[in-house]
Amino acid sequence: MAAPAPGSQREIRTRNLSRVLYAVAERDSSSSRASVAASLGLTRAAVSTLVDELLRAGLLTERGPALPGGGPGRPGTVLEPSDRGPCGLGAEIGVDHLAVCAVDLGGRVRARTRVEYEGRGSEPAVVLDRLGALVDTVADEVRGAGLRPAGLTVAVPGLVSRGTSRVVRAPNLGWHDTDIATPLARHAAPPQPASGTAASPFAVTVDNEANLAALAEVWLDGGRMPGDFVHVSAEVGIGGAVVFDGEPLRGTRGFAGELGHVPVRPEGPVCACGGRGCLEQYAGEKAVLRAAGIGTEGPREGALTLLAARAEAGDRGALRALDGAGEALGVALAGAVNLLDPGAVVLGGVLARFARWLLPTLENELRSRVAAPGTLPKLLVSELGAEGPLMGAAHCAVRAVLDDPLAHAQPRA
Amino acid sequence: MAAPAPGSQREIRTRNLSRVLYAVAERDSSSSRASVAASLGLTRAAVSTLVDELLRAGLLTERGPALPGGGPGRPGTVLEPSDRGPCGLGAEIGVDHLAVCAVDLGGRVRARTRVEYEGRGSEPAVVLDRLGALVDTVADEVRGAGLRPAGLTVAVPGLVSRGTSRVVRAPNLGWHDTDIATPLARHAAPPQPASGTAASPFAVTVDNEANLAALAEVWLDGGRMPGDFVHVSAEVGIGGAVVFDGEPLRGTRGFAGELGHVPVRPEGPVCACGGRGCLEQYAGEKAVLRAAGIGTEGPREGALTLLAARAEAGDRGALRALDGAGEALGVALAGAVNLLDPGAVVLGGVLARFARWLLPTLENELRSRVAAPGTLPKLLVSELGAEGPLMGAAHCAVRAVLDDPLAHAQPRA
Repeated sequence: MAAPAPGSQREIRTRNLSRVLYAVAERDSSSSRASVAASLGLTRAAVSTLVDELLRAGLLTERGPALPGGGPGRPGTVLEPSDRGPCGLGAEIGVDHLAVCAVDLGGRVRARTRVEYEGRGSEPAVVLDRLGALVDTVADEVRGAGLRPAGLTVAVPGLVSRGTSRVVRAPNLGWHDTDIATPLARHAAPPQPASGTAASPFAVTVDNEANLAALAEVWLDGGRMPGDFVHVSAEVGIGGAVVFDGEPLRGTRGFAGELGHVPVRPEGPVCACGGRGCLEQYAGEKAVLRAAGIGTEGPREGALTLLAARAEAGDRGALRALDGAGEALGVALAGAVNLLDPGAVVLGGVLARFARWLLPTLENELRSRVAAPGTLPKLLVSELGAEGPLMGAAHCAVRAVLDDPLAHAQPRA
Repeated sequence: MAAPAPGSQREIRTRNLSRVLYAVAERDSSSSRASVAASLGLTRAAVSTLVDELLRAGLLTERGPALPGGGPGRPGTVLEPSDRGPCGLGAEIGVDHLAVCAVDLGGRVRARTRVEYEGRGSEPAVVLDRLGALVDTVADEVRGAGLRPAGLTVAVPGLVSRGTSRVVRAPNLGWHDTDIATPLARHAAPPQPASGTAASPFAVTVDNEANLAALAEVWLDGGRMPGDFVHVSAEVGIGGAVVFDGEPLRGTRGFAGELGHVPVRPEGPVCACGGRGCLEQYAGEKAVLRAAGIGTEGPREGALTLLAARAEAGDRGALRALDGAGEALGVALAGAVNLLDPGAVVLGGVLARFARWLLPTLENELRSRVAAPGTLPKLLVSELGAEGPLMGAAHCAVRAVLDDPLAHAQPRA
């Protein structure tokens, strides 16, 4: 192995390799050395050197021969992120399901699995063990396809202490003060390397599901999203993220974004958080199902399908329940919009599925309660919907590779 | 006049001059070339050159001879911001008062004036004319003391369109779509310069009073404030500012921070903003005075003094009114804290004066409604109180000089 370059030189090289890799990974259509050079404002020669290094590292591949309409000289072969290089793993701890997926450097989902379970009042060690087994299954599957899991990000429905992998409180699971990363670290990590080679790093990171869902919007639907938006991310509970300049606001302790616990009616029903009349008590899944007269004891999916079918059929109870949820969302979001003046409000998670019934009353409330005259923020519906947290988690792990390509070069014997 | 230095060189020089000027201006005790060099990590020689330039420009003065305990070599004379150089003017358009003050580079208030008036339903042109006359009075006074007004910042109780000087809506004044800067621009600007000299720039900038009050906390009480806090700034209405990293969040259109219009009870009384049950309807000055059985027709100060006296004497009605306001503040701030997880909540404006009666119920509400377990954000009471907006405005104008010292060098004939 060559001696490592001095800090600053290595940093510059890492940054340039990363820029080239992002340019290829994020381009929908064909990339070439010339198109990358043009989009980054670098010389063709500099880009060629960087591309060659990324090819050698197994992070890019090229497909020849020349692009049609390519310029004179060396034919512009098509560059693509390697589909046999490192990949990112994402995992989701839901209240009623566990899911794991693998996404390659080109953003394609290469393997995924999901199991239903009962998360309420569950034992963290048991759940993390089960999740670890799913991680191993997905990791084995992608290894079989020639990919190398490079890192794992876990989405959790709870408050994650800033800069740690510790869930301080996950009210719908009943977990508190639970370290998520340590029990998962022995799963999916690469096998011990042959002697004389360096092991690739394998990091497990943990984030709130709403933050990851919001990041998924930025990363996967960035063209539609303004830099500043409020993202509502509902599964069983209601989460949220306040995004500035494409980054979720973390808050002093890491606990920002708890839209589900914004008070809507101060004397309303008691909430799992200890407050009263929180948004979650009016627009949370259980509250809406109850208001629609649908039982909440069975599997979620059945109940949600029934709610959608009834709303579709014009059932009064279902429509009234969704109206009520839209109104409560409108009240809580009016407060958020008055405080933050975001460019958009995005309905994600399970709310995306019910958006057509929620939006009319939600928009009415916003219109009557937003103090600033003129246009409201854009009201957008997430195209990722309930997939947001898992996709955000996997792409978070992918981006760790794109950010530091040298650390994930194919180890050579 | 020397030819201007090329852009980047001039920028570096400006930045270094600015750093030296800030270092002297923000130091409570004595500065010397050596202490400035130490605090900025620059060489003594570089600082000496910069200091000499600031002395020639009339922005610094020195007071000799040596500091006690100064090192060997050239005696370390004491450096001070000039008390005869440029100064910043701040103006405040309140709902019942107009105020103007001048602050010198050392942060001392050198002149101020204030008149009571009736702002509700007032004619903007008439009010701005009157404010312009006050600006001229203060400018004349400080010119008499050898100072030069270098800029004017105006605090307004309304929504200011981002990057403009236009008030889109000031509900308690009844103003909308009003340009504030143009009618004031001919006031206080320096007299026409003698031929052959360059006029100093004189800018009029306009900002929401709550943003300026929050900035005043950062600039004047920064040691106590965390980087991220929510500032409640109440006069007749309730404003607010969401501060990140020491800067108020502006929002997409410039309308962030409208805490007064966060819904507290969705079916509550109709508000001037068009919404219902906004915080202002429960914790606004008029609502609190009414709840305490105190008339709101006379001058504000009399009514507020009466409220404080009654609360002091244990009057049930006054205490109940303040409890109710604290509760409503707690509900609205619980939403803000759950969304933003700030390091502190700061009670400013007229709320600072009543903080001892507001804080107990406010804190109770926060404690029962904040979703994250553990400590609450710090609850701080502004030491500037109702002075916040005016001080923020004047210091904004002062900092424009500190940011670009070369533009405000004493014009020489």
